[in-house]
Amino acid sequence: MAQEKTLDDLFLDTLKDIYYAERQIVKALPKMAKAAESAALKAGFEHHLRESEVHVERLEQVFEMLGKPARGKTCDAILGILEEGKTIMDEYKGTPVLDAGLVAAAQAVEHYEIARYGTLKAWAKDLGLNDAMKLFDTTLSEEVATDEKLSQLGVTEANRKAA
Amino acid sequence: MAQEKTLDDLFLDTLKDIYYAERQIVKALPKMAKAAESAALKAGFEHHLRESEVHVERLEQVFEMLGKPARGKTCDAILGILEEGKTIMDEYKGTPVLDAGLVAAAQAVEHYEIARYGTLKAWAKDLGLNDAMKLFDTTLSEEVATDEKLSQLGVTEANRKAA
Repeated sequence: MAQEKTLDDLFLDTLKDIYYAERQIVKALPKMAKAAESAALKAGFEHHLRESEVHVERLEQVFEMLGKPARGKTCDAILGILEEGKTIMDEYKGTPVLDAGLVAAAQAVEHYEIARYGTLKAWAKDLGLNDAMKLFDTTLSEEVATDEKLSQLGVTEANRKAA
Repeated sequence: MAQEKTLDDLFLDTLKDIYYAERQIVKALPKMAKAAESAALKAGFEHHLRESEVHVERLEQVFEMLGKPARGKTCDAILGILEEGKTIMDEYKGTPVLDAGLVAAAQAVEHYEIARYGTLKAWAKDLGLNDAMKLFDTTLSEEVATDEKLSQLGVTEANRKAA
């Protein structure tokens, strides 16, 4: 009989899930920055790209703490979320509401990450992995800040269009 | 030449997206409630099922306000998120960490909804759709409350297992 799965397995599976997701996000952000029309949104995506590259490195540090190779596991959730963002880019290209659609797509990405890092932070605490917990907490704060900045950019954009 | 797309189109597309998503969630929640081992988590999923049925009705009210038929549009994001939840149910069935995995899966669902309702609320405001804005705001508050309750259940569960 197979050995019973524990929180260590669930933690590692989820770590692989977000590692795959972050690397997909690093690939998607330059396309979103290129598509964005407002300079502020473009700069926002470029800033978040640099942050996301650091998030990938932090995840690699956690794999190292566990003595496991850094390996992703296909994350259907992020693929679906990014696919919806791609559809927005295709269908709203050249329209005055492309940026509003990009902000919405990016916020769906942020919220996926907020959910996953929140979970990983809680489990790292349960497992006594304090250094990992701190890394997740730092990344989580950055994802929350990005989501808030996107909300503001969305509003600014709407006001600009309405003006 | 096709007429240029506006915020009304983006709003309607996103409304169709979350309408599809909510109906998928209504189908998934009874399975999650059945799978959950702790009585508290089971009750939490059942409570959220009843809430989600009301969320579907609120979305139908918004379609009616717009004079449009209530129609969903395949939402790849929620399909991916729910698929990951299903994998957790399959892979962790009968293990002591199934409920922790279910909480994580449900929080990914909640965060998708929080992102979408936040966007719809902002756009409803921009479009002067005040009644719709209020409906989204009520649903958004319920999704945020569910996410917080899940975080607490996750912690309680971990403490119980550790005891």
